[in-house]
Amino acid sequence: MSTLIASSTEVVLQQYKQIRARTEHICQPLEPEDTVVQPIVDVSPPKWHMAHTSWFFETFVLKPYLPGYKLFHEQYSYLFNSYYNSVGSRVQRDQRSTLTRPPLRDIYAYRQHVDEHLSKLLQQIPDTKAAEMLPVLQLGLQHEQQHQELLITDIKYILSTNPLLPAYKPQVNSGQEQKGVKQKFLDIPGGKYEIGYKGNDFCFDNELGVHDVWLDDFQVMNRLVTNEEYLEFMQDGGYTDFRHWLDEGFALVNCNKLEAPLYWLQQDGEWCRFTMHGLEKVNLNAPVCQLSFYEADAFANWSGKRLLTEFEWEAASQVYPPTGGNFVESELLEPKAADPSEEGLQQLYGDVWEWTYSAYHPYPGFTKAPGAIGEYNGKFMINQMVLRGGSCATPENHIRTTYRNFFHPDKRWQYNGIRLANK
Amino acid sequence: MSTLIASSTEVVLQQYKQIRARTEHICQPLEPEDTVVQPIVDVSPPKWHMAHTSWFFETFVLKPYLPGYKLFHEQYSYLFNSYYNSVGSRVQRDQRSTLTRPPLRDIYAYRQHVDEHLSKLLQQIPDTKAAEMLPVLQLGLQHEQQHQELLITDIKYILSTNPLLPAYKPQVNSGQEQKGVKQKFLDIPGGKYEIGYKGNDFCFDNELGVHDVWLDDFQVMNRLVTNEEYLEFMQDGGYTDFRHWLDEGFALVNCNKLEAPLYWLQQDGEWCRFTMHGLEKVNLNAPVCQLSFYEADAFANWSGKRLLTEFEWEAASQVYPPTGGNFVESELLEPKAADPSEEGLQQLYGDVWEWTYSAYHPYPGFTKAPGAIGEYNGKFMINQMVLRGGSCATPENHIRTTYRNFFHPDKRWQYNGIRLANK
Amino acid sequence: MSTLIASSTEVVLQQYKQIRARTEHICQPLEPEDTVVQPIVDVSPPKWHMAHTSWFFETFVLKPYLPGYKLFHEQYSYLFNSYYNSVGSRVQRDQRSTLTRPPLRDIYAYRQHVDEHLSKLLQQIPDTKAAEMLPVLQLGLQHEQQHQELLITDIKYILSTNPLLPAYKPQVNSGQEQKGVKQKFLDIPGGKYEIGYKGNDFCFDNELGVHDVWLDDFQVMNRLVTNEEYLEFMQDGGYTDFRHWLDEGFALVNCNKLEAPLYWLQQDGEWCRFTMHGLEKVNLNAPVCQLSFYEADAFANWSGKRLLTEFEWEAASQVYPPTGGNFVESELLEPKAADPSEEGLQQLYGDVWEWTYSAYHPYPGFTKAPGAIGEYNGKFMINQMVLRGGSCATPENHIRTTYRNFFHPDKRWQYNGIRLANK
Amino acid sequence: MSTLIASSTEVVLQQYKQIRARTEHICQPLEPEDTVVQPIVDVSPPKWHMAHTSWFFETFVLKPYLPGYKLFHEQYSYLFNSYYNSVGSRVQRDQRSTLTRPPLRDIYAYRQHVDEHLSKLLQQIPDTKAAEMLPVLQLGLQHEQQHQELLITDIKYILSTNPLLPAYKPQVNSGQEQKGVKQKFLDIPGGKYEIGYKGNDFCFDNELGVHDVWLDDFQVMNRLVTNEEYLEFMQDGGYTDFRHWLDEGFALVNCNKLEAPLYWLQQDGEWCRFTMHGLEKVNLNAPVCQLSFYEADAFANWSGKRLLTEFEWEAASQVYPPTGGNFVESELLEPKAADPSEEGLQQLYGDVWEWTYSAYHPYPGFTKAPGAIGEYNGKFMINQMVLRGGSCATPENHIRTTYRNFFHPDKRWQYNGIRLANK
Repeated sequence: MSTLIASSTEVVLQQYKQIRARTEHICQPLEPEDTVVQPIVDVSPPKWHMAHTSWFFETFVLKPYLPGYKLFHEQYSYLFNSYYNSVGSRVQRDQRSTLTRPPLRDIYAYRQHVDEHLSKLLQQIPDTKAAEMLPVLQLGLQHEQQHQELLITDIKYILSTNPLLPAYKPQVNSGQEQKGVKQKFLDIPGGKYEIGYKGNDFCFDNELGVHDVWLDDFQVMNRLVTNEEYLEFMQDGGYTDFRHWLDEGFALVNCNKLEAPLYWLQQDGEWCRFTMHGLEKVNLNAPVCQLSFYEADAFANWSGKRLLTEFEWEAASQVYPPTGGNFVESELLEPKAADPSEEGLQQLYGDVWEWTYSAYHPYPGFTKAPGAIGEYNGKFMINQMVLRGGSCATPENHIRTTYRNFFHPDKRWQYNGIRLANK
Repeated sequence: MSTLIASSTEVVLQQYKQIRARTEHICQPLEPEDTVVQPIVDVSPPKWHMAHTSWFFETFVLKPYLPGYKLFHEQYSYLFNSYYNSVGSRVQRDQRSTLTRPPLRDIYAYRQHVDEHLSKLLQQIPDTKAAEMLPVLQLGLQHEQQHQELLITDIKYILSTNPLLPAYKPQVNSGQEQKGVKQKFLDIPGGKYEIGYKGNDFCFDNELGVHDVWLDDFQVMNRLVTNEEYLEFMQDGGYTDFRHWLDEGFALVNCNKLEAPLYWLQQDGEWCRFTMHGLEKVNLNAPVCQLSFYEADAFANWSGKRLLTEFEWEAASQVYPPTGGNFVESELLEPKAADPSEEGLQQLYGDVWEWTYSAYHPYPGFTKAPGAIGEYNGKFMINQMVLRGGSCATPENHIRTTYRNFFHPDKRWQYNGIRLANK
Repeated sequence: MSTLIASSTEVVLQQYKQIRARTEHICQPLEPEDTVVQPIVDVSPPKWHMAHTSWFFETFVLKPYLPGYKLFHEQYSYLFNSYYNSVGSRVQRDQRSTLTRPPLRDIYAYRQHVDEHLSKLLQQIPDTKAAEMLPVLQLGLQHEQQHQELLITDIKYILSTNPLLPAYKPQVNSGQEQKGVKQKFLDIPGGKYEIGYKGNDFCFDNELGVHDVWLDDFQVMNRLVTNEEYLEFMQDGGYTDFRHWLDEGFALVNCNKLEAPLYWLQQDGEWCRFTMHGLEKVNLNAPVCQLSFYEADAFANWSGKRLLTEFEWEAASQVYPPTGGNFVESELLEPKAADPSEEGLQQLYGDVWEWTYSAYHPYPGFTKAPGAIGEYNGKFMINQMVLRGGSCATPENHIRTTYRNFFHPDKRWQYNGIRLANK
Repeated sequence: MSTLIASSTEVVLQQYKQIRARTEHICQPLEPEDTVVQPIVDVSPPKWHMAHTSWFFETFVLKPYLPGYKLFHEQYSYLFNSYYNSVGSRVQRDQRSTLTRPPLRDIYAYRQHVDEHLSKLLQQIPDTKAAEMLPVLQLGLQHEQQHQELLITDIKYILSTNPLLPAYKPQVNSGQEQKGVKQKFLDIPGGKYEIGYKGNDFCFDNELGVHDVWLDDFQVMNRLVTNEEYLEFMQDGGYTDFRHWLDEGFALVNCNKLEAPLYWLQQDGEWCRFTMHGLEKVNLNAPVCQLSFYEADAFANWSGKRLLTEFEWEAASQVYPPTGGNFVESELLEPKAADPSEEGLQQLYGDVWEWTYSAYHPYPGFTKAPGAIGEYNGKFMINQMVLRGGSCATPENHIRTTYRNFFHPDKRWQYNGIRLANK
């Protein structure tokens, strides 16, 4: 986290309320039982997300800055700490489904308790303290937005394991009817590019320090890879030809008998896909998503192209600055087809996070914050790959062109997709 | 299952209603989230128990015997079949926590639907059909009683994994204050004993055929082994001295670092135990329970005694026919101390199931029923040990002296305990 | 182990030399590399068997009875102890392939060292001491014979994992050409039978105490089940029809995709079998073997018959006392077809161990010897099934009708087969 | 692999003979049993290394280029293929210890057979063919040198698992007595550096394409981190303080209870280390080695410094071109202390491979060779970290400043160590 945002506390409070309300909006269609299970270790129970984000504000904002603040419950720090060793022991990450208690209504009460005291804090905090507190509060808000995206992907996963394949919500508008956009490659000139966040608003520590990289000339695809293109790869035997694959990826494919992205299944000879709106035929023009880095890379090799590095992606975003995108605010919750009426580089923002062929490592000059906040990002900088651009589950005001998302290359349950580079 | 019970359908309906009501009574204190988790494969979600027992009546009684019966939901047969290959495919046993849907209220509606139609069936079934149906219905009732015991042990396990250690219900009366009963050994004469069920009421197929066994003289302990006696074993280094243990048991102890029965934990230097009423000090005079066959056998070896065989147990019950016991109806839900005012053999019924040193194998002349009902017992007759006598979670009218319960020797989450034999 | 054998030490020495020589005879065709690997935890490296049997004599005979005896190597007690906790720590059972050193020649030197000192001991031991020592020495000889059988089955397994499928030895005489013997069932009358070893020669502690059992009338099959009969079961879909199987057995079949006994494989549409003489066509008249208890039991169920209990087997051997059999001395090392010229009950001895439907539990009155020798048998009396009669890898003078062999029901690498009972 | 080496075939033959002889020299002290075991999947049996390197020449040189060449054995291609999908099926990587046959003497015969025919080929190949063949032969020689390093590290691992802790060879000269060299940091100026191999001799495809990177000013440590410095980290609680560690590294440390580098063990309160010469006291001035990337990184964090990137390492080697080093030719087979008489940057070559904080990814413009040779490097470019500079097990003429070695960050059995950077 970089610098202090210059906002009056009133503006911040509005922002706070809006973000907190969205979390509850996301959870509103769930049954209590949906909120407690953890089908795989990556997927946390929604109830846990709701409590953990509140714990973050309680631990890092209310406790240190609101005089006389009483914890909602003595044991919640143990129950809802995620991975902060500095804050003490905690429920093991793979044991979150043990938390059938506190019941859901207690978690809502917890959220309300935290919200009321946060409100109080913002009304009474002296300016001298506010300068110190506001960056932490801001980090809490960004943190809650990150968990909103996880809530959506985790809810989707939880519902997908249910044999009834229940829809999260009825469909809004799938974009099913849209025409395709022809694949093109746009030139990005080589040279020295400045990488990392330079502004005065919020950024994560992993977007710093700002530094130069030297790039050769390259080309970037004008839109995301579509389901139609990916189906071609599948139908060409893509999943059985070792030549396209990284060795570990091919081992994974064989071990798990993979033959399509996550959530795809064949019904009566036709490919369908489990969406937030139930099972649907695969939308051919929509971007392919919910696949691993290995699948993205194998597709790129099969295409005779390659993935971008995160530096090339950021350079492309400097040449073609993105404007809007299909974010969580559309409530579509699935990626949609590119716009045939648009020229240039599109879908850089929203729809799906784009796998890059860059390891999630520290930038030159990266330093961790002291204390618990320093555990936020730095300790995960190994064995993960960077993704860029946000997705249909990302809040619009959460993304930046310098934003670095990261996942292990085998993870498939996020809205992750593919954009190609050409040399 | 042996022979037809001679009851008017009205009596059966009363029995049915009473048993079904108890299941819901057991689940009443639960939160919806408690009803969906499966912390280990042995422990099924309470919601699943409630639905599965209804599925049993729907599948084996309503479908074949109620003309025009419509299934409550087409997919419930897939969702709530436990292990009947004859009935078709099903949710894998270790995947029951995926069933966040149907929500709890749907399961209650399912139960009501089945109950209403069962009622209807009993009022209209012709006598000729009733003779065929009633044994299956009776099996369904016995089956539901078995799941009531599992519900209690599974709920206890689920609550015990929660870091808050929530009580299931406030304590009724623990018997904590009771005095102990001195350990004695009672003579049982050797000779030929007839084993197995010979009556005209219900029994399970595994209690047949009736056959003779030849026993030597032996002695049986007058009451169950107490927590105090077991503590002595622990304090004498029982868990670290290989000489008392079966090899596989000692490996388990070391691998899992066991040092006490399940649910025991030390607090401020004192042994406590998680009970259905929350964490309590260990009641020294109460029977030890929730331990594995290995622990029971190691304790017996340490004592210089041994466990009974199931045949010796049944012979003892012929010499000293049991009367009452601490069953589920007491609502204590934990075993209680022996009665100092009683002479002779006590606690043969209720409190805890008694591990025997007999493998759960078919009796001579055992035959499986044809069809799905034949999968009830026979296919589990390997690698399990027989337990006798019922527990504090068993319905009183469910037990018989010929009743054979069975678990793998490493299982600890049932109310299983120890009675010793002497030669 | 029961009573002292009445032999002059000279006779014992001859017996010792003969048994020790056979171990080396068995290992003679091996490469050094064959003697060190451990492809599964059940299979020990041949070099380890050779050393461990010597360690037994060194530890339990030479050390206590030969004054001034010097250990061959200080660390061998650690290296070659199998499972005797009383003797101290040891190489973990699954880590025996770490013993690339001491090299094979050192193991041969170790054997020679032990043999020379054993010889010396027998020549100089005073009578008073001999009475105490001889039973232990006798146990050591029986122990070495048990390891000879394991050597053969382990060597077969090791060679079978090699892609070249090398033969252990060229074939002697497979009996391939022999005619079949018609399946018949012979009556054994019910009543009280005395079980267990009553003689004055050696027996294991698990054959004691002698006790009575009560049996109903039954029938026993005149010979072992053949490969031809088992093939019929296979071709009738035996491996895919759950109705024949114990639940754990069927899970194993599906998990491991079993469709035939161990060492069977199809080549050009024909069933072949890896034997000690290389890959051969399945000999239809030979007894089926190297299958699990689950397979034996499923076959019995499919046949409409059942397996014998170990008590029925022993009763049958009292009615039809076995004479000879196909033992290791034939050097065939595979079971051979029944003899068409023989009447009555045949193949009770040799060819294959016969799975019984009896758990390996203590007999009434069983007691463990004090000290390390007490760890020989008793601590394994759980989760294993009894086998009777010896096999083509058993030394002829090692078997008795009261002999109880035992393996877990899923084990397949021994020469274990099937005899049926009929009610 | 880049360009053709300009050597007469006679020179190549000399080089071939010398390299092949070294492989056998390395294996000479082994027992046959040492050559067949595979204690962990990473460690291949020495016999397999000897055969696989020969298979490489047979498959890629003799078969295509020597007219009428007959394979030594039809099945060796199946037995000794490592990971080349293009060449067909093969023994699974974790099943190499099944190869007790062919026996060691056959593998030596195989090597001789290949050598004789290679000699013949070099004497008769026409110039036109030689131009095509020589690069493949050169790759085969580099490949054999890589396996020589693996042979040494695998032999060390195999011997270390043996409870006798046998020495590979008596010690030559440990350098134990040498004085330490003071830690210093040398300036490397920032700017644009050219990375990758530009010469006319052999290089691997992963050293291409040559490209520019932009670096900031940094400082490089004058020598490798010593055992003494690492001990300080250990004694300061380095292994228990989460703040120094990447999260996955700390999980590994806790899960495996790590508290020192591989091969370190405490004896009578003193740290010792298993070396190729047996167990020795830790040499304080020698470079620490045989640790994971996680340990290297944690040490760097504890020091308040960091690891270099592979680009910084290569830049440093341009500023301070390395000359000699402690390579395999010294036969020391363990790293030795820095030289107190030397100024500047030392130990850049030899002693230990230096972990960098760079992922092993393709350079810009990287392309795979067509066919099987293309499987050599590219398919491993995920989840591994780059190491630079060679070790005491590397042949001297095998290393280059552009050479990229790579291992997963958790691997500990290679001679991998630490050099620090300062900003």
